Amino acid sequence: MSKEISKEEVDRLYKKLNEEAESGGYHLNPDTDLTKKLVRGLLVNQKRYGYQACPCRLASGEKEKDMDIICPCDYRDPDLGEYGTCYCALYVDQEILKGKKEVKSIPERRFRKKKQSSAEKVKKPGDKISKSGYPVWRCRVCGYLCAREKPPALCPICKARRERFERFALR
Amino acid sequence: MSKEISKEEVDRLYKKLNEEAESGGYHLNPDTDLTKKLVRGLLVNQKRYGYQACPCRLASGEKEKDMDIICPCDYRDPDLGEYGTCYCALYVDQEILKGKKEVKSIPERRFRKKKQSSAEKVKKPGDKISKSGYPVWRCRVCGYLCAREKPPALCPICKARRERFERFALR
Amino acid sequence: MSKEISKEEVDRLYKKLNEEAESGGYHLNPDTDLTKKLVRGLLVNQKRYGYQACPCRLASGEKEKDMDIICPCDYRDPDLGEYGTCYCALYVDQEILKGKKEVKSIPERRFRKKKQSSAEKVKKPGDKISKSGYPVWRCRVCGYLCAREKPPALCPICKARRERFERFALR
Repeated sequence: MSKEISKEEVDRLYKKLNEEAESGGYHLNPDTDLTKKLVRGLLVNQKRYGYQACPCRLASGEKEKDMDIICPCDYRDPDLGEYGTCYCALYVDQEILKGKKEVKSIPERRFRKKKQSSAEKVKKPGDKISKSGYPVWRCRVCGYLCAREKPPALCPICKARRERFERFALR
Repeated sequence: MSKEISKEEVDRLYKKLNEEAESGGYHLNPDTDLTKKLVRGLLVNQKRYGYQACPCRLASGEKEKDMDIICPCDYRDPDLGEYGTCYCALYVDQEILKGKKEVKSIPERRFRKKKQSSAEKVKKPGDKISKSGYPVWRCRVCGYLCAREKPPALCPICKARRERFERFALR
Repeated sequence: MSKEISKEEVDRLYKKLNEEAESGGYHLNPDTDLTKKLVRGLLVNQKRYGYQACPCRLASGEKEKDMDIICPCDYRDPDLGEYGTCYCALYVDQEILKGKKEVKSIPERRFRKKKQSSAEKVKKPGDKISKSGYPVWRCRVCGYLCAREKPPALCPICKARRERFERFALR
């Protein structure tokens, strides 16, 4: 199967994903051998299913059912926040990027019952949480708003770090 | 009029607009001849009025009245969502970019009565809609929030596709 | 002290900050001599404290207390909106970038009692303001949402200008 995918195709997608990652405050795994194998897996799934399903999970072949595991998957950002890598280790955090931490195998988050975020646990009465259960975070530097379990490692707009985010609530 | 604008000025603005478009998940029309004519039109309007009014619409010359048609106009994104191009065809969607669909003339949205978005039609009681009538969308991959008729074709932060967005409501 | 920081380190951080600034709609001061001195100051503080505290303010050395003055500081964007530069003049607005306005010394915003924004003053009954007191702004072109005193000079997503933003309220 993988013989059908040329080295040029892999390199082209690798370059695109790398640029998109860096401009949004994400990082591909610096282990290029592994990363290119995963990118090849994305291209194999593209040919097989018509969409780039996660190369490390079993896709059903029905796009509607696989929507959450089209790469980048719905679990990438929570996994990056909790473990420093996504399930495949295609995306890693700054610490792994700089060699300060090693990549380890992480548990599958896909079928886990949604954990109450720590933000929700400590919420004060009157705090608004979105119906989907995600709190809204505000970058104190540039005002960027996003709704996710934890703030991103870097603000995608001004590159301020996670610690510069605050909970944001409408009164 | 257009003789006053040099080829270098056109090329410089073309390059700037192209970079800004790509980094935000937008695309200029790949028909470079047409695109550069439109870019020249923007520069003509810049000289004439002091702002880059849409080259395909009649500007009043009063900035306050023309605000909605300063390029990119307020109608670009809804038109891209509905027809795959903006009114001028300066901006196009992925399908047109890749030659899978052709550019066609589209109706003027400017004086159209605001159509109720399909999202609003199906809204469940209790859903919050902004006063301006725009629903809020959340990217399920990165948590990006925006308020517009439909989600963008690509998330400007993580480049996930439109189908990865969900309605977002505060409870 | 500054001898410990090499020219290469300064150039590398300068390049990174410049790219991040431009991609987010910000601008470094075009006076490169000054800007590189400030960048050197950031690197000095990085070595001294472990974080890039503002080079023009006295840091305490306790990260938690200095969080608001880690560069870019919490005051950059309000100062850019009101004066056209940040406190250090590391970041400047378009007018200063293009030489239409000069850099002047500006007052310290850090210990100022939070001024009621003009948006708040004119607010109509029923408008929602976040608990943190920041109004939410919506880019009329692309739907980008942010919460800050005034809208940004350029929309970081579609590069529309400040005047294309509107107040955004949930009903």
